[in-house]
Amino acid sequence: MSDDPQGTRLDRWYSRYASRAHAMRASEIRALFSVANRPEVVSLAGGMPNISGLPLAQLADTSARLVRDFGEVALQYGSGQGDETLREQITEVMALEGISAHPDDIVVTTGSQQALDLVTRIFIDPGDVVVAEAPSYVGALGVFRAHEADVVHVSMDADGLIPDELDATLTRLAAEGRTVKFLYTVPNFHNPAGVTLSLERRRKVVEICDRHDVLILEDNPYGLLGFDSEPLPAMRSMSEDGVIYLGSFSKTFAPGYRVGWAVAPHAVREKLVLASESAILCPSNASQMSISHYLEHYDWVGQIKNYREQYRERRDAMVGALEEYIPDATWNTPQGGFYVWVKLPYGLDAREMLPRAVTARVAYVAGTAFFFGDEGHDHMRLSFCYPSPERIEEGVRRLAGVVNAELETVSIFGTAGETRQRLVDFPSPDVS
Amino acid sequence: MSDDPQGTRLDRWYSRYASRAHAMRASEIRALFSVANRPEVVSLAGGMPNISGLPLAQLADTSARLVRDFGEVALQYGSGQGDETLREQITEVMALEGISAHPDDIVVTTGSQQALDLVTRIFIDPGDVVVAEAPSYVGALGVFRAHEADVVHVSMDADGLIPDELDATLTRLAAEGRTVKFLYTVPNFHNPAGVTLSLERRRKVVEICDRHDVLILEDNPYGLLGFDSEPLPAMRSMSEDGVIYLGSFSKTFAPGYRVGWAVAPHAVREKLVLASESAILCPSNASQMSISHYLEHYDWVGQIKNYREQYRERRDAMVGALEEYIPDATWNTPQGGFYVWVKLPYGLDAREMLPRAVTARVAYVAGTAFFFGDEGHDHMRLSFCYPSPERIEEGVRRLAGVVNAELETVSIFGTAGETRQRLVDFPSPDVS
Repeated sequence: MSDDPQGTRLDRWYSRYASRAHAMRASEIRALFSVANRPEVVSLAGGMPNISGLPLAQLADTSARLVRDFGEVALQYGSGQGDETLREQITEVMALEGISAHPDDIVVTTGSQQALDLVTRIFIDPGDVVVAEAPSYVGALGVFRAHEADVVHVSMDADGLIPDELDATLTRLAAEGRTVKFLYTVPNFHNPAGVTLSLERRRKVVEICDRHDVLILEDNPYGLLGFDSEPLPAMRSMSEDGVIYLGSFSKTFAPGYRVGWAVAPHAVREKLVLASESAILCPSNASQMSISHYLEHYDWVGQIKNYREQYRERRDAMVGALEEYIPDATWNTPQGGFYVWVKLPYGLDAREMLPRAVTARVAYVAGTAFFFGDEGHDHMRLSFCYPSPERIEEGVRRLAGVVNAELETVSIFGTAGETRQRLVDFPSPDVS
Repeated sequence: MSDDPQGTRLDRWYSRYASRAHAMRASEIRALFSVANRPEVVSLAGGMPNISGLPLAQLADTSARLVRDFGEVALQYGSGQGDETLREQITEVMALEGISAHPDDIVVTTGSQQALDLVTRIFIDPGDVVVAEAPSYVGALGVFRAHEADVVHVSMDADGLIPDELDATLTRLAAEGRTVKFLYTVPNFHNPAGVTLSLERRRKVVEICDRHDVLILEDNPYGLLGFDSEPLPAMRSMSEDGVIYLGSFSKTFAPGYRVGWAVAPHAVREKLVLASESAILCPSNASQMSISHYLEHYDWVGQIKNYREQYRERRDAMVGALEEYIPDATWNTPQGGFYVWVKLPYGLDAREMLPRAVTARVAYVAGTAFFFGDEGHDHMRLSFCYPSPERIEEGVRRLAGVVNAELETVSIFGTAGETRQRLVDFPSPDVS
């Protein structure tokens, strides 16, 4: 109610919620949108692409033409599976990663987040297992949690998911009688870990999952954003009936239209369309046709090249600043995408440190967001996608001040874990 | 797979689907989109608004300005709850139906279908009961089914839902130990029944549900589309903590942007935002700002008045044609909205007749779509929203030919039920 902005009064309907509703909790992503919006804070937290380089004046003309000449379709209901022309164009986008798909295999979704939700919805009963990298995309973990899945993590190294560990984990889960519904993986420029699954490992992962009869959910928002090399072939190109592939225009063009897609084996695709019709009736024609006209009338491959150059420059700024200001931390140097996964110096806790970082006008996402259980305290995800190189350097400089103060506290009072008790009065941006 | 368009080969993942996925089935809405798209068919089936009167040339300019001047926001991610300016404007739209709400109480959704899905998702565990009018909106029944709810229908008459029957049903369900999570109702120009809940009954329904401690889900896409009278106050205006209200711009402006909303008690609203973030991350900024600019720069109340006049003319055409061509059927005369609910002459089955109607180039939705169980065979829903008055008359004329041929068959062979066996070879548009 408007007279109770804190929501502290009793919830009359509390006892009526579904079991799954109790598993939903405020995602750190949401909190971070509001933090990131304060202009004085350097946000190294969000995953917002830097769309400032888009040709807005020309896009405005395209947008006008769409409404003027095609308005009676663009403003009308469309099909549940998505616009046919756009689905044809999506096959061309995917061809860049070696995928050969028919437009019939594609379901257009409200961002690839909806595709994640639909896949989870049609496969997960409460208690079913999803196997996922450690760490994993926070938004995917939120979906799995909301459908009461149990997530079992498998480790990664510099070449991505470790196949032997995957094999052993699937063997163990089968022996325990657990039902594994799918492997969730982000093979390219992983969010948050920044690493890429090597070609050799892709083949192994496909073989292992096939042998264990486990479906692969290949989530690939960043695949075309490699800085120095051509895209590796998608796992979907190695297995048509063993992989559901998710793609998105949010990072290669713009997220504001909310257009993503799923490619799935035929029978699964039919279920996905049914689930999507139930969830939203149909995706927005206006959004889909905006994307479709963009792909038709613009040098979209050139725009992706611009993005890659922009993000490489920002990656360099971030890695350079880390070397200069926080040399005691460790990190990988991502070859694409948006993120650096930073391990803090011994004894520091990224989640506990966050309120002090925000006070120092810099934001990040604590590593704990990317694990199903209570792990990741010693890591943080730094995004280099949105701020300018100068702001990135300034952000890391501020962060270094916080890290150094924290290290001093730890050296006096012990590890951050032991200092936890003293920090409960700090305002938490996670619940703002 | 592309080499198997019929999907007849075995589904490798069949045993892996969630329990709820087996409850999902092809909605008659989807089949009807494809039927309606054939130009030779007069579709009295779909619920597509007639947007041909929108000022597309001016809307094109607005659309261009949006991208040119606000593109860096419109093309970016937004908040999970929805654009703040739009939420303020939505309070003004709802004020027309007596609702006083704070923008904080509102969640913007991908069409009100998504709001239906989110409410169901946070409240329904498998086996929970939803009480709903008989008949009910097919898309809502699909959502309830997809979440494995059990729907218990309550009858309507010319003044809408019958309060005494609602009271008795809730009493009976409580005595049986069944958990009723909410009452789903479309109080204005009901889809499909065309009736409107009287003011007196609104008060009674609110009182009854409050007494039984049952939440009301008030779905109101058509409330502003009354032909001859001012809108009745929404039930949300009578109870702030007992009602979740759903609204939409799909019928009062255009469905192509997929923008709807929910207004809910504060704690429920928070759960809805969490559920929406999990489902789609955030609604489209481009879509929301298109609606927002439309509300700001256009005479949207005048446009609604245009729609009302258009639809009244079409309603008159349909009712006139029914009187002329199918006088043996019975129907109500709706005072607003999109639909006439027609009871067929004795012995006819609307679902069985549908293939023959489509062959005669006219489509409708069989009454069976609007019931949770196997009811409604003797009814059909005719939509007058989309075709021109001339096409409506032609459609009803074609339908009369089918009805008369059907009546002849029945008079020779007995009731349609007895002829069922002979009809199995007809192609069914429901599964196309």
